[in-house]
Amino acid sequence: MNAIILSIGDELALGQTLDTNSAYLSAHLAEHGVMTRYHQTVADDQADIAAAIRTAAASADLVLITGGLGPTDDDLTRFALADAMGAGLHLEEAQLDAIRRMMERRGRTMAERNKVQAQCPDGATMITNEHGTAPGIAATLGRCTVYVLPGPPHEMVPMYAAAVEPRLPSPDLTILTRKINTFGNGESNVAEMLGELCARDRNPLVGTTVSEGIVSVRIRSAFADPFEARRQLDATIGQVEQRLGAIAYSHEDQSLADAVLTLLRQRNMTIATAESCTGGFIGKLLTDIPGSSDTYVGGWVTYSNAMKTRQLGIDSAIIEQYGAVSEPVAAAMAQGALGRSDADIAVSITGIAGPDGGSDDKPIGTVWIGIAQRDGDASAHCMLLSGGREQVRDRAAKCALQLVRLKVLGESFDIVRWAMPIHSSRTTS
Amino acid sequence: MNAIILSIGDELALGQTLDTNSAYLSAHLAEHGVMTRYHQTVADDQADIAAAIRTAAASADLVLITGGLGPTDDDLTRFALADAMGAGLHLEEAQLDAIRRMMERRGRTMAERNKVQAQCPDGATMITNEHGTAPGIAATLGRCTVYVLPGPPHEMVPMYAAAVEPRLPSPDLTILTRKINTFGNGESNVAEMLGELCARDRNPLVGTTVSEGIVSVRIRSAFADPFEARRQLDATIGQVEQRLGAIAYSHEDQSLADAVLTLLRQRNMTIATAESCTGGFIGKLLTDIPGSSDTYVGGWVTYSNAMKTRQLGIDSAIIEQYGAVSEPVAAAMAQGALGRSDADIAVSITGIAGPDGGSDDKPIGTVWIGIAQRDGDASAHCMLLSGGREQVRDRAAKCALQLVRLKVLGESFDIVRWAMPIHSSRTTS
Repeated sequence: MNAIILSIGDELALGQTLDTNSAYLSAHLAEHGVMTRYHQTVADDQADIAAAIRTAAASADLVLITGGLGPTDDDLTRFALADAMGAGLHLEEAQLDAIRRMMERRGRTMAERNKVQAQCPDGATMITNEHGTAPGIAATLGRCTVYVLPGPPHEMVPMYAAAVEPRLPSPDLTILTRKINTFGNGESNVAEMLGELCARDRNPLVGTTVSEGIVSVRIRSAFADPFEARRQLDATIGQVEQRLGAIAYSHEDQSLADAVLTLLRQRNMTIATAESCTGGFIGKLLTDIPGSSDTYVGGWVTYSNAMKTRQLGIDSAIIEQYGAVSEPVAAAMAQGALGRSDADIAVSITGIAGPDGGSDDKPIGTVWIGIAQRDGDASAHCMLLSGGREQVRDRAAKCALQLVRLKVLGESFDIVRWAMPIHSSRTTS
Repeated sequence: MNAIILSIGDELALGQTLDTNSAYLSAHLAEHGVMTRYHQTVADDQADIAAAIRTAAASADLVLITGGLGPTDDDLTRFALADAMGAGLHLEEAQLDAIRRMMERRGRTMAERNKVQAQCPDGATMITNEHGTAPGIAATLGRCTVYVLPGPPHEMVPMYAAAVEPRLPSPDLTILTRKINTFGNGESNVAEMLGELCARDRNPLVGTTVSEGIVSVRIRSAFADPFEARRQLDATIGQVEQRLGAIAYSHEDQSLADAVLTLLRQRNMTIATAESCTGGFIGKLLTDIPGSSDTYVGGWVTYSNAMKTRQLGIDSAIIEQYGAVSEPVAAAMAQGALGRSDADIAVSITGIAGPDGGSDDKPIGTVWIGIAQRDGDASAHCMLLSGGREQVRDRAAKCALQLVRLKVLGESFDIVRWAMPIHSSRTTS
């Protein structure tokens, strides 16, 4: 079975918006053994869209189309599909009601123009959209099945999962995959740790990908026998984890923040944060996780020095003597957060994210991370991170979370090798 | 003049890698008045690539192809191009030398397999690659000009700039674009406000797109006379802004947080935050902006009730009586943040982001936003936001920033219509 994926929109064809839907869909189709022959992005031109649908439907078993289902004049996919089918359109009253109810739940009155979203090509069926006003469309052109899905990813993804994926055929091979996430080392370091497990002709196949500093190890086990596929997958997971050690923090899509919260919860510990250069980003990452309130008590964004002094009780003489980005300030921030909250561990960050504020002594990317534990000591750890402001802040927040993990696990911080550790210090609280 | 863009590679077609080249190229072509009819991503299949090239060359003036120029067995673009041209291939000695020298500069010996990269379709010419081993190819098919560029963006971008862009014709039309960003109303509301400005046959053309709750109005002015294009663009910008009023917060890619900081800086004001359900996200958004430290002093993440009481001085009896997600708590959080910082305005958020914690009385998505101003009163505003945890938190943070803007501008909050406003209250500080 093969597929063609079309994405519709001037903003995509003109390069103003990046199409992520097509990559998402083809990756998910591949898991079902459905190979994508091509993606095509077409501008908001009804004749061009209709021609692209006709061409695709003539040469693939499955055509997935995203976008162009909105309520405005440049949303033309439903009309182009009707053209390609040689069909008229009719109003689906049930969908019109669903749109009206969706708008009402959001406290809005359905605009006249939303009615067009309930227009369905004759002979096609509509798919209710649980996350937006645009219903999807399922149709048949000759021997080809066509699905039209809404363009916004948060509407497209659940509709694909609910209406398309369950109708895909079962593949001949059982393909099982697992992703193991690491933070702290570069991709080539991780590949070296894995060694011959990464051979390209191995089954299960082991590969690495990197995204935003997180190096993920992907394992793909493909066997005719489902039990063998599972057994081999589990064996390879064991080998990979043994070689990675503590830098591996989770499987599949569990975030680093979630892994930290899970670990703290197991140890019956709570955490507080004190952030300067990350400005609340660690708190945001921790509270991304539902149920984090049992473990994360909260924290301080002490962006100004006055906030550091007044809210965390840091002696302004220390800030003057060592600077806000320094070992004693990082340690005092963590200790201040610990002392003022009822948390069991506190983590702090102070650094120079750029683009201004760097010096020879403290270049942009210099980040101090402080960790203080109740009934324990406080320590501070300096890293020099590369990249622009966004990257420095992102990596600093992840470093802080990984160091909390390692601290609680009693692991050495030396395994974090991708940033340049300048030095660590230790002070008693 | 129009163009078609092809990107080649299994990793793209299978969704393992996101194609960013096509968006880059079409955005840059548009600046020259070259409109892209479609993008197509084709897997590593020689016949499919050749067919895609033939189809594209038959219907566009310009075809840009990226990828498939590497040294391995799955790099087939040069052979597919030769097929489409009905031509053989020959070895370009000068390019072979260039590849050898490039490898030597990197301390490597040229592998036998790299030789294939100097194979050029007869009748085509090669473009030296200053940043990698794969030379580009320029060819003519009928009346169509075809360029093949290497896939890695850091090789593709400089080759496009050096070899393709200078050869584009001066555009017949001057095309000027502008994006105006709004937050607070749905896309259909914004379209209604714009009315007949959105007519598809209008020049300048006005359209809307939505991403993460932000509705952007895109204006495209295309005229032969550059002065007319500018005059018409400016006139339409004026009309659009007049109809949108204060929900429009910036042009082009300026973020809402940046717009808030810019406004506060103009008024010589500073801001503090007190966040519960957003857990530091507003602080993160504000500190995304370089130089925010002159305007954002910092804040509190009072995720637990103990933090609200101990750090912001909120009477625990109030929390007990009204609940943590309530008007008096939101107002007291803003007042507490204002009183404990030296900021001129403070904003607070307390809400139920889900997936748990909702009730009939306070369903998931209930968010109270508090605003307190020095020498002013404090007020709290309740919204019911739709979507999952991530969406509720994102929209809540943006709502808070937009309300700060409106407050400082002295605009009514009633213009924020996309969320369901339950009610606002006002308390004197």
